[in-house]
Amino acid sequence: MVDLRVVSARRASQSEPARPHGGVVTEKAALRSALDQARAAGRTVGLVPTMGALHDGHAALIRRAAAECDLVAVTVFVNPLQFDRPNDLAAYPRDLDGDLAVAAAAGARLVFAPTSTEMYGVGAQARVHVAGLADRLEGAARPDHFDGVATVCTKLFGIAGPCRAYFGEKDFQQLAVVRRLVHDLDLPAEVVACPTVRADDGLALSSRNALLSPAERAAAPALHRALRLGADLLASGGRDPEVVAAAVAAAFGHEPRFRLDRVDVVDADTLAAPDERTTRIRILAAAFLGRVRLIDNLGVTL
Amino acid sequence: MVDLRVVSARRASQSEPARPHGGVVTEKAALRSALDQARAAGRTVGLVPTMGALHDGHAALIRRAAAECDLVAVTVFVNPLQFDRPNDLAAYPRDLDGDLAVAAAAGARLVFAPTSTEMYGVGAQARVHVAGLADRLEGAARPDHFDGVATVCTKLFGIAGPCRAYFGEKDFQQLAVVRRLVHDLDLPAEVVACPTVRADDGLALSSRNALLSPAERAAAPALHRALRLGADLLASGGRDPEVVAAAVAAAFGHEPRFRLDRVDVVDADTLAAPDERTTRIRILAAAFLGRVRLIDNLGVTL
Repeated sequence: MVDLRVVSARRASQSEPARPHGGVVTEKAALRSALDQARAAGRTVGLVPTMGALHDGHAALIRRAAAECDLVAVTVFVNPLQFDRPNDLAAYPRDLDGDLAVAAAAGARLVFAPTSTEMYGVGAQARVHVAGLADRLEGAARPDHFDGVATVCTKLFGIAGPCRAYFGEKDFQQLAVVRRLVHDLDLPAEVVACPTVRADDGLALSSRNALLSPAERAAAPALHRALRLGADLLASGGRDPEVVAAAVAAAFGHEPRFRLDRVDVVDADTLAAPDERTTRIRILAAAFLGRVRLIDNLGVTL
Repeated sequence: MVDLRVVSARRASQSEPARPHGGVVTEKAALRSALDQARAAGRTVGLVPTMGALHDGHAALIRRAAAECDLVAVTVFVNPLQFDRPNDLAAYPRDLDGDLAVAAAAGARLVFAPTSTEMYGVGAQARVHVAGLADRLEGAARPDHFDGVATVCTKLFGIAGPCRAYFGEKDFQQLAVVRRLVHDLDLPAEVVACPTVRADDGLALSSRNALLSPAERAAAPALHRALRLGADLLASGGRDPEVVAAAVAAAFGHEPRFRLDRVDVVDADTLAAPDERTTRIRILAAAFLGRVRLIDNLGVTL
C-alpha cells in the first residue's frame, strides 16, 4: 500500500512530472487486494467516491472518513456513464496532481484513479436502475444519469468490499439513490451522508465552480440565497410546495446572469411531493450561469 | 454455524414437523456473518444459488462446490421477480425438508432460505439489467425474467461476499447473464459453470419435472433427442443455423404431446446468431408438455 503523504512530499521536493502514477492505484485488482489486506488485518475501510477536481467539500468527506475508519481510499473517476451531454464530460475539470495533494492532506492513504477502459472494459452490458428515486427531479430531465451513478457505485462497492462510504448532501438525489441502491441490492457498504460545505458567501463548493468566470462566481451565491429564502418561508409556516417553489424561482430575478433550470420542494426521503406523513422537506434547485449548471439544496424539518 | 448433517439426522429420528427452521439460516445478516467468519478464519466459500426442490443436478453442483471450497452455502429462494406468470410462481415446487436432506448429503454446511420480505423488504426499487444477453432468446419473450435473475444474484453475492458460485449449464442463458453481470459489476464472485445432469433416458433434471404426469414424463426425453439430432447435424457439417433449428423443430413431430415453444441456434458466448468468428455453437430449445414448460440445450464446438 502506498503512503500518499510520503509520495506527495517526495514529488513536491523533486519537481516530478505533472501526472505521476506512483502514488495512485489504477487497477481494480490492486484496490481490491489492498483493501482486502487491510480488512484481513482487522482495519476498517472508508471509501470516498469522487469524480476528482477535489475541493474543500471532498476534503471534509475524507477527513470525516479518516476520523471514523482505519484506512481511507478516495476514488477519482470521471464516470462517462453519468454524463448525458458530451460537452459536459469533456469540460469536466481534471487535476490528478491536485487531487493527490488534497487526498493526502485530508488523511487518505490510497487514491484509486482508473481509466474508463479499466473500469468498464469492452462491451459492458450490466446497468443498475433505481426505479422511482432515479426517475424523479434531475432524473426526469436526464434519463440515464442516475443509472450511470448507480452502476458505477455498484462496481466501486464490488471492488472495494465492505466499507463505510462517504457522500455529500450537495448531490442530494445522488445520495438518496446510492442509499437506496445499497439497501435494495444488499451491498456491503454503509452510506454516510455529510453536510454540504460552503464558501463564506454561501456558495456550495463544487468542482464545476472552477469553470465560472469571475463575474459568474460573484453572482453564484444567489442560488444559495434563493434556497435560504424558501427554507425561511417553510420555517415560518408556508406549507404549499408550489408557493415555496415559486418564491425561490422569483428570488432568482434579482440576478439576471442566472437562468433557472428547476426548483423542487419535495419530501426528503421519497423525493416526491410532500404529503401528510412528511416530516422533512428538501428544496432543490438547479440553474445555469453561462454554460455551467450549478445545483444546491437545503433541508427543513417541519 | 449449523451442521446440517446433525440437524437432519436428529429430525429424521424424532419425526419433527414438516418445515423446521432449526437447520436453516433465514436472515441475510446471519448468512453474511457466518460466511464472513469463515473467510476470516481463512476458509473459502462456495455458493450454490437455487430455487429449491433440489434434485441430483443441484446435488452435483453442491458436491463440486464441496470438493473445491471449505464451506458451502446453498440458497433456496423462489424468486418472485423472475416469474412472469403468477400461476408458474404458485405452482413452482417447494420442499424445504427435502432440500435440507439433499444439501446436507451433498456436503453443504448452510442453507439460506429467506422469505420474500426478508429478501426484498418493502418497496425495493433497484433493478439490474444486462442489456443484450438478457434481451435475447428467453428474454425476448419474458422481458423482466433476467432482470429478476440478475437482481437476486447481485443481492445474493452482496450478502454472501467473496465466493465461488456454482451454476448449471441447463439454464444456459441464465449462466451467461450471471457471468456477464459478475464481470460488468465487479462483483466479488467467481462463476463456475457445471454440466447439465441427465436422467438415464437423457431428460435434463429439473425441478419442473416433478410436475409432469407419468405419460408426460415418458414423452419428455424427446426434447433431448431433438437437440441431439441438431448437434449431430452440426457435427456432420451442417452450418446453416436456420436449417439446424428447423431440423430440431421437425424432430418434435414424433412426440405429439410436446408443443414446441422455441429453438435457437446461437453463438455460445454472445447468444446471438453465429458469425464467422463463432467457434462454439449452442442449441437451445423450450417446449411445453401439458402446462409444464421444459428447457434444455446442447453445445457443439466447431
